[in-house]
Amino acid sequence: MSPTKRTPKHPAYGSRRRAVLGRCAETDKVRAMLVSRPPDVRYLTGFTGEDSWLLFGGGWATLITDGRFAEQARRECPKIDVAVRTGAMEPEAAAAVKKRRIRRLAVQGTHMTVRAHQKLGEHLPRVRLAPVADVVRKVRAVKADHEVRALRKAIRVAERAFKEFLAPGAKALVGRTERAAAARLDHLMRLGGASGPAFETILAAGRHGSLCHYRPGSTVIRRNQAVLVDWGARVGGYCSDLTRVIFTGRIPARIGEIYPVVLEAQRTGIATIRSGVACRTVDAAARAVIAAAGYGEAFRHSLGHGIGLEVHEAPGLARTQGGRLRSGMVVTVEPGIYLPGLGGVRIEDDVLVTRQGPKRLSALPRDIQAMVVR
Amino acid sequence: MSPTKRTPKHPAYGSRRRAVLGRCAETDKVRAMLVSRPPDVRYLTGFTGEDSWLLFGGGWATLITDGRFAEQARRECPKIDVAVRTGAMEPEAAAAVKKRRIRRLAVQGTHMTVRAHQKLGEHLPRVRLAPVADVVRKVRAVKADHEVRALRKAIRVAERAFKEFLAPGAKALVGRTERAAAARLDHLMRLGGASGPAFETILAAGRHGSLCHYRPGSTVIRRNQAVLVDWGARVGGYCSDLTRVIFTGRIPARIGEIYPVVLEAQRTGIATIRSGVACRTVDAAARAVIAAAGYGEAFRHSLGHGIGLEVHEAPGLARTQGGRLRSGMVVTVEPGIYLPGLGGVRIEDDVLVTRQGPKRLSALPRDIQAMVVR
Repeated sequence: MSPTKRTPKHPAYGSRRRAVLGRCAETDKVRAMLVSRPPDVRYLTGFTGEDSWLLFGGGWATLITDGRFAEQARRECPKIDVAVRTGAMEPEAAAAVKKRRIRRLAVQGTHMTVRAHQKLGEHLPRVRLAPVADVVRKVRAVKADHEVRALRKAIRVAERAFKEFLAPGAKALVGRTERAAAARLDHLMRLGGASGPAFETILAAGRHGSLCHYRPGSTVIRRNQAVLVDWGARVGGYCSDLTRVIFTGRIPARIGEIYPVVLEAQRTGIATIRSGVACRTVDAAARAVIAAAGYGEAFRHSLGHGIGLEVHEAPGLARTQGGRLRSGMVVTVEPGIYLPGLGGVRIEDDVLVTRQGPKRLSALPRDIQAMVVR
Repeated sequence: MSPTKRTPKHPAYGSRRRAVLGRCAETDKVRAMLVSRPPDVRYLTGFTGEDSWLLFGGGWATLITDGRFAEQARRECPKIDVAVRTGAMEPEAAAAVKKRRIRRLAVQGTHMTVRAHQKLGEHLPRVRLAPVADVVRKVRAVKADHEVRALRKAIRVAERAFKEFLAPGAKALVGRTERAAAARLDHLMRLGGASGPAFETILAAGRHGSLCHYRPGSTVIRRNQAVLVDWGARVGGYCSDLTRVIFTGRIPARIGEIYPVVLEAQRTGIATIRSGVACRTVDAAARAVIAAAGYGEAFRHSLGHGIGLEVHEAPGLARTQGGRLRSGMVVTVEPGIYLPGLGGVRIEDDVLVTRQGPKRLSALPRDIQAMVVR
């Protein structure tokens, strides 16, 4: 017997839908659900297009799409019904609901818009619409083994591209604009098998490092600067998410002071990870290290988040987060210290939660001396 | 006097907000609005980050953001208040609404989720929330001159990259995978000044051309194939969107038959464009050409859509679309014929609506012989 729960080798869309419906039924006594959020539709069907809704119940599922995606939907989801709409989405979805004689229908309260909900209600005056929150999100938070493999692959592609990116040494950065350097890293990920970056790559030179969501600009990278790079690859739909700070020569004094604090915070946060631990405990452990060093105010975001088909998934590792870690969750651990006008340090890795403890899926060096490129 | 309406040279965020509020006030008697859709927030403030809401009324505006974006928000929107939230968005927004003593508040019914609306209502029991639809969308549909310039720039970057992409001749494609070819085109756009592709580039060889939203795969491009490329650049936030079919040698017979039909449909559609014309008339004109050639069923999507800060904006050029074209709108015109199992042809350009007629902003060749690369 394996010590971890057995999971299917390939996406088992039917059992995913059953798991979601089971969670809805617990609280809302519904027997059918309408899923409108594209990554959730993908998770529950394999369909990778847009603008399509999934209606499903026990043992049946209908994907409502339009002409642009009809052929793709039939190819990607051979086992479920595909309804090709010609008019607006709401009446078409309502017709499918009526056909199945559904009386209570779960809808995605955290995705469906006020307007779509209203229109759907007008077309279905006798159906009780039950907005549910985060149901698919919770199911998606725990990854099956094949999903962990997909995430590992997305991490490997990002890591290999980063090594190749830094192979020319300081020349990879110095004298280039942030934008050109980021473009090169993205291109290396594509050539390495990514369908694209998992999000807009952040590459911030010098003082720009204090802007957590900086967009690379026309600033030319100089010698003896810290360069913060936050990047990830999307491979087969799955996202990786990593951050490193590299140095183009001498390490700036203040950055050299905060770097070990951030690294210690990250190690401490990771060390607390294990199934059953409260999410907020992991955040608190890392945060305490930074606070003890006097930089509490300068760590301005939560510690991490789940990754999967989206780059931000459940669970959140935050002070305000309820819930506990479970085996099979994959989270980022990314503490940071930001000094406006000076720069910032963030160190981020992707970690699998197991019963035995944390399993770091990313393996790039983190020690400060290893981050100096010459 | 210029024959077209005078527009500011730079984004005039205050007057944009006034225009939006004016439209809301017409129907809903509100004096303040809460904008939650990121590109709308950007349009109304200049803020380019995520996860932030804008609350505004006559002469005042507050951007509600979180610690990750605080510094960026203050830099990008120096003229408005920035409130940095520490808890959830809804209570923080509710506090700002109370502070301003607002009694009726417009919210974005086509973006705000059922859940956010409900939570906001719980925090604001005495405030009437009025969901409005497409108000910002309508204001955004008509571009100011500086926006047309930004779109031209995004088009130029996409066109130059495409020419460079095809410069090696058939070698640019033959023997490469679709994925590698698409990656190269994207990289050329980045090097040419794009922050990234405006959407996931479609590069579909042979029969894959019949899938309107095909994702480039590991298929190796061969000689004597049609290759459909649908690409665009994002430059300074603005998006271009173009499609061409190129031939790696001999033109496949069926594709050679449908190509002139699609081109004629596109020319006919563009020729009808002028301010005051109904949107559906443009779609109908192009569609009639394709139907007359016997391919009516094989043109499975609408004719086009507005472009701007998003790649899909108002107005839609569709059979079911109400409304008329106005001077300053910029739309794609992209008829197509798709033959499952065989391939497809789509030809797409970006067109500015003026009182005098259409002004094609994109200028790549379209004639079939010009599309053959050797």
